[in-house]
Amino acid sequence: MAAPSDEKGAVGPRCHHRSTAMLDVPFLPFCAFLGALGFLCVAMVGTWCQHWRGGFSLDGSSRTFNWHPVLMVTGLVVLYGAAALVYRIPNTWRGPKLPWKVLHGSLALGAFILTVLGLAAVFRFHNSQGTPNMYSLHSWMGLGTVLLFSCQWAAGFGAFLLPWAPTWLQALYKPIHVFFGSTILMLSVASCVSGINENGTMEYKLLPAEAVFANTLGLLILIFGVLVVAALARPSWKRPDSNSPDSRQ
Amino acid sequence: MAAPSDEKGAVGPRCHHRSTAMLDVPFLPFCAFLGALGFLCVAMVGTWCQHWRGGFSLDGSSRTFNWHPVLMVTGLVVLYGAAALVYRIPNTWRGPKLPWKVLHGSLALGAFILTVLGLAAVFRFHNSQGTPNMYSLHSWMGLGTVLLFSCQWAAGFGAFLLPWAPTWLQALYKPIHVFFGSTILMLSVASCVSGINENGTMEYKLLPAEAVFANTLGLLILIFGVLVVAALARPSWKRPDSNSPDSRQ
Repeated sequence: MAAPSDEKGAVGPRCHHRSTAMLDVPFLPFCAFLGALGFLCVAMVGTWCQHWRGGFSLDGSSRTFNWHPVLMVTGLVVLYGAAALVYRIPNTWRGPKLPWKVLHGSLALGAFILTVLGLAAVFRFHNSQGTPNMYSLHSWMGLGTVLLFSCQWAAGFGAFLLPWAPTWLQALYKPIHVFFGSTILMLSVASCVSGINENGTMEYKLLPAEAVFANTLGLLILIFGVLVVAALARPSWKRPDSNSPDSRQ
Repeated sequence: MAAPSDEKGAVGPRCHHRSTAMLDVPFLPFCAFLGALGFLCVAMVGTWCQHWRGGFSLDGSSRTFNWHPVLMVTGLVVLYGAAALVYRIPNTWRGPKLPWKVLHGSLALGAFILTVLGLAAVFRFHNSQGTPNMYSLHSWMGLGTVLLFSCQWAAGFGAFLLPWAPTWLQALYKPIHVFFGSTILMLSVASCVSGINENGTMEYKLLPAEAVFANTLGLLILIFGVLVVAALARPSWKRPDSNSPDSRQ
């Protein structure tokens, strides 16, 4: 494992290739790990709300609020992350692209529907309790993230799935769509952790078991988000033709 | 602005080049904008603490706590972001690399010192008030971020500034250092917004002017972080030889 030479500039492509190859992780096992981590996040947020927060209902009480964290973590983080990673699956690089576009758009639509239901849960809870809406940074960030997500979905659908967008517009919009894809996930993760932290601020001073559980959930959501954004940015996991414009099917 | 042809596959490199060229932003004006945004964040967090939160002191009161948000935003977000972007300045791509390494390491060290002082402020405040430490998700995330940052600085110093690291180790560690560079910034921004949100949870229900100001600060910090991470990821702003291993000076 010694360097081939200590002289400046003597380290060549071979050494570099060997070094980076040591860091190479195959995409599919990484994806399976991410899937397990996402599943764990969903299971933990459900357990938190069921076990410590009184469970779920539609009656406008705090049990209606409990749908909010569960739907947001499931939709805006985990399902959104799955949608974002579709084009990193090597199988999508060959053959017709349309089925994968439909899968990407459908997963994102599923994520969006869960997100809107998650918003409905918190507004219904606030309204039935007489609590004001939209005063916290969490609510500003969260609603901003959902608005960006709705623009992203509509623009992606219009540009890449409807047959009317000219190719120059697709090519122009594609890097914007990719940029906002990662950005929206970063914003959703920041919104989630600020939401989980709201609870902790008021009731966790003595660090009960619930606090350890909810804080751990927050850290796992952060790790999930960082790993998805890193996977999206990794050059060797991008479609080989990812710099070419999107052609219609 | 019409597409050269509507036939599938007819859009060629020329069209793609034209489309992406329209999105090209020169680095230095972008950097000046980021600098202004960072300065605005620092000015706003200072104004918030001075105008609404009672100002600054070292007596262990909430005026000691006020150093915490100011030092964290200044060190762990703005100065850290400046340090991260050093190698994106085109001037650093030519001539000897050592001065730029020293600048990168010094800015990061400055950011780290401010961060440690920011931690000292909150621990001193908690201890003098009898408030427990480390119970919230904000504190777990924040301390985790600072610990990662300390490892990042020490490992970067050892690998890239001390003359003992073999080139294979530099080449192996460089992508790890780059990955954690962006990750730590994302984590600091998430920590900052969860901290600002803590305040809002308790006192902002009627959305006073302070809430609008602090929430706006939180959004600006988010935008700053997203733009720095995006600038770091942008292929055309990386050093042309960024894939080659780091040679010693």
